[in-house]
Amino acid sequence: MENLKIVVLLFDGITALDAVGPYEVLSKIPNSKTFFAALKPGQINCAGGMKLYADYSIEEISEADILLIPGGGGIDNLLENTEMLEWIKRIHRTTKYTTSVCTGSLLLGAAGILKNLKATSHWNHIEKLKNYNAEPVKERYVIDEKIITAAGVSAGIDMALKLTTLVGNESLAQIIQLAIEYDPMPPFDSGSPEKISKELLDAFFKINSQKNSAQR
Amino acid sequence: MENLKIVVLLFDGITALDAVGPYEVLSKIPNSKTFFAALKPGQINCAGGMKLYADYSIEEISEADILLIPGGGGIDNLLENTEMLEWIKRIHRTTKYTTSVCTGSLLLGAAGILKNLKATSHWNHIEKLKNYNAEPVKERYVIDEKIITAAGVSAGIDMALKLTTLVGNESLAQIIQLAIEYDPMPPFDSGSPEKISKELLDAFFKINSQKNSAQR
Repeated sequence: MENLKIVVLLFDGITALDAVGPYEVLSKIPNSKTFFAALKPGQINCAGGMKLYADYSIEEISEADILLIPGGGGIDNLLENTEMLEWIKRIHRTTKYTTSVCTGSLLLGAAGILKNLKATSHWNHIEKLKNYNAEPVKERYVIDEKIITAAGVSAGIDMALKLTTLVGNESLAQIIQLAIEYDPMPPFDSGSPEKISKELLDAFFKINSQKNSAQR
Repeated sequence: MENLKIVVLLFDGITALDAVGPYEVLSKIPNSKTFFAALKPGQINCAGGMKLYADYSIEEISEADILLIPGGGGIDNLLENTEMLEWIKRIHRTTKYTTSVCTGSLLLGAAGILKNLKATSHWNHIEKLKNYNAEPVKERYVIDEKIITAAGVSAGIDMALKLTTLVGNESLAQIIQLAIEYDPMPPFDSGSPEKISKELLDAFFKINSQKNSAQR
């Protein structure tokens, strides 16, 4: 397999699993190399207190075969950042696939590259895609042209396995799925707003609004 | 809910998703705080090139409500490290639950705390548990006394949701599952050696043995 340059954007307030789920899949593609880039290189503070590390500033990265934009509460601080939006547009012109997980798709939208395309996002933020003239689609991941957007957080793992079939092949994707023993057995069937009980969905919104008002 | 101190061990050669999957679940438990500890604080080099960050040395951590030991190739370097094994034994005496993901269970075994208990590990390493007088069980996660061991890599997410029901309750676990939109839809059913084709299982072992000989 030819060399594959994977670039993962990091930023303060990122949801760590949005980046690490796909990373654990894509970094196992033979001859791939993953680059972690941020506005400034160095420590990245994730939602919840964990720290990741960006080796590169975005200005040091001029191209990518795969661009991955994770999501998280911190995405809001980037949606009007001209340096970031211009960089995404520039890198997107060089990619085989431009991808996002969770609210990362809002940043793709803000960069103007989801116009008139189908896309998805975290179920609680998906309607915001309309602000960027994208068509929200409630799927685990959505492929339109060379852009692949995944639903919330854990959906990045499913998306990355699909992406592996596109840049590699189905056998490779299955072998990587075995390597990470991805044979999911969640103890509940509550991973989407359509599946959880009305009572617990209300509880989710209540906790979420308390958290948001505490942050202000 | 009362305060919950979660301690995650980091080490060079860790599989990032082993730590980040459970972290993304457990850090959402109200009044929980997660501490990342390593032999020495600072940057941690994951398998595949990603970097994590440990804020604490293990000697700075003297207790935990939940201890989480992730796995990865780097675990082999710890299995005879007296400082590490003594620390695990010491912390285990203070925990509500002592947990592992993937080959992290081998370190629990090396510390002597799996003796005569049922436990699991990554499917390709599970038999090694016998070296520590543990009884290998092929399940997504295994609970015996206060020790919970999870199968390979992605199994940590399922284990952490179960653990959330034990330190919290089922409603909270379902809400967190919704928050991370954990409604898994893997593109293949190849996540266990019993499910993948014989041909691809052979291919996995071939790739794995090439990687191991390249590392030597």
